[in-house]
Amino acid sequence: MGKVYIVGAGPGDPELITLKALKLIKEADVILYDRLVSPQLLSYAKESAIKIYVGKEPGESHKQQEINKMLVEFAKRGLTVVRLKNGDPMVFGRGAEECLYVAEHGICCEVVPGVSSFLAASAVSGVPLTARGYSSSFAVVTSHEDPAKGFRSVDLSRIAGAVDVVVVLMGASKAHEVLEEIGKIMGYDTHGVIAINVTLPGQTIIRGSLRDLIKMVREKSVERPAVIIVGKSAKLSEKLYSVCR
Amino acid sequence: MGKVYIVGAGPGDPELITLKALKLIKEADVILYDRLVSPQLLSYAKESAIKIYVGKEPGESHKQQEINKMLVEFAKRGLTVVRLKNGDPMVFGRGAEECLYVAEHGICCEVVPGVSSFLAASAVSGVPLTARGYSSSFAVVTSHEDPAKGFRSVDLSRIAGAVDVVVVLMGASKAHEVLEEIGKIMGYDTHGVIAINVTLPGQTIIRGSLRDLIKMVREKSVERPAVIIVGKSAKLSEKLYSVCR
Repeated sequence: MGKVYIVGAGPGDPELITLKALKLIKEADVILYDRLVSPQLLSYAKESAIKIYVGKEPGESHKQQEINKMLVEFAKRGLTVVRLKNGDPMVFGRGAEECLYVAEHGICCEVVPGVSSFLAASAVSGVPLTARGYSSSFAVVTSHEDPAKGFRSVDLSRIAGAVDVVVVLMGASKAHEVLEEIGKIMGYDTHGVIAINVTLPGQTIIRGSLRDLIKMVREKSVERPAVIIVGKSAKLSEKLYSVCR
Repeated sequence: MGKVYIVGAGPGDPELITLKALKLIKEADVILYDRLVSPQLLSYAKESAIKIYVGKEPGESHKQQEINKMLVEFAKRGLTVVRLKNGDPMVFGRGAEECLYVAEHGICCEVVPGVSSFLAASAVSGVPLTARGYSSSFAVVTSHEDPAKGFRSVDLSRIAGAVDVVVVLMGASKAHEVLEEIGKIMGYDTHGVIAINVTLPGQTIIRGSLRDLIKMVREKSVERPAVIIVGKSAKLSEKLYSVCR
C-alpha cells in the first residue's frame, strides 16, 4: 500500500516552499497539483512521475470527488502520492477533507504544512498580524463560502469586534462588502491592505484607511487571489516599507 | 549599507524551513538566532559568518533593545544580517518590532515568512483550522501577554464566541485557565488538542474534549512550547490519524 502526502506548496514564489515539500516532490510517483502551483516546482519531480493538473478554476469544484478517488486509487497501487496545494493544506484548502477520505479508505495520509498566503501577505505588505501595542490576536476567514451551505456562517461583524486584526482570504470579488462590514465595527479610519498575487509576478499591495480602500475597490474591481488584512497594526505598513522601495 | 532580513525558521523540524530562508542563511555575514532554532540550520552558514545566540529564555525579554541595536550596527557596517526566528516573524515573534527599529534607522529590512508553529500543530495533530461543515474561521491568540501592559487585552470569551476554531500559542503555563475560558463559551464537550514540541523530538499530542483536557492539565503541568487548538474540527483528529499510527 502506498501513502498520500497532502503538501503545502507555499504562497506562490517557488522559493517559499519547504525543504520537506521539495523532497517529497522529488520522491513522488504521482503528483496532483493545483492551478496556482509554480511550474518550477513540478520540474523537480522525477522523470517517471505522473503529474496531473486538477485545477481548480473557479467553478470546477465538482472535481473534488474525482480528486479524492484518484488519491486512493494511486495509493492502492502502492505508489507514493503527493497532493500539492497552494499555501497551507489546513487553511481553506480542503486538505482535511482529502486526507479524511484517504484515511477512511485505510490509507496512511500525512499533512505537510506550508507557508499560508496570509503569512506571506503580512510579510510583503508590512502589516504585522501581531505587534506589541497594536495586536495580540488575529482571525482568518474566507468570504468565499461554500454555496451548497445555503447560509453564511462567518459573522464578520462579530469577528471584527473580537480580535485586533482581521484577515480575509479569497475576498477579492466581495472586497467592497467585506471592507464595509469590518469598517462598521473597527471604524472607517482603521487601516488595511489588499494584497493581490502575493509573492508572484504582478504582486500588488493596495494600502489605506478602510474609507480609502472601499473607494478604490468601488472604482475598479480587484482580481483574485487576494488577501485583505485590516487592523491597527496596518498603520505600521508605510513605516516598515519606506526604506527599501 | 547592509540589509536586514527577518526570517522565519519554521516550527522546529529543520526540513520545515523554506528554500529562501536557507539561501539567506548561506549568504549571511551575521546570524542572530533564537533559542529554539535548530543547530542544523546554523551549520549551513558560511564559515566566516558571525553567529550570535540571542535567546530568549523566558524572562530574558530585556534583551530586546540589545538585539535591535545589533541588527542596526551590523547593517551599518555593510553586512548582510539574518535575524532567524522560530515559526513566522509576524506571529508573536516581535518581527515587526525589530523590522520597524531597523527601518527607522534608515536600513532596508525584509521579512521572510515561515511556517508558523500553529500551522504545523494543525498538520501533525490532524485538527484542521478550516474544514467544510466544521470551520470557516479561526483565531490565533497568545496567553502570554506582555506583563508591561498591565492588562489582558485578549478577550478569549468573545473570540471563542466569534470563530469556529481557537488557537492559543504559548498557552502551556496557563493551559487550565485558557481551556476553562473557551469551554464556558464553546461547551466542555467541544474537542481540542494540546500539541507540545511540535515537529521536534519529544513531540506530544494530547487529545480530548475540553472536559478531559482540563482534567489532564490539572493532573500534570504542561511544558512549553505548546499550541492549543479547540473547535468542532478537532473531532476529525482521531479519524485522520487512526491509519498511520
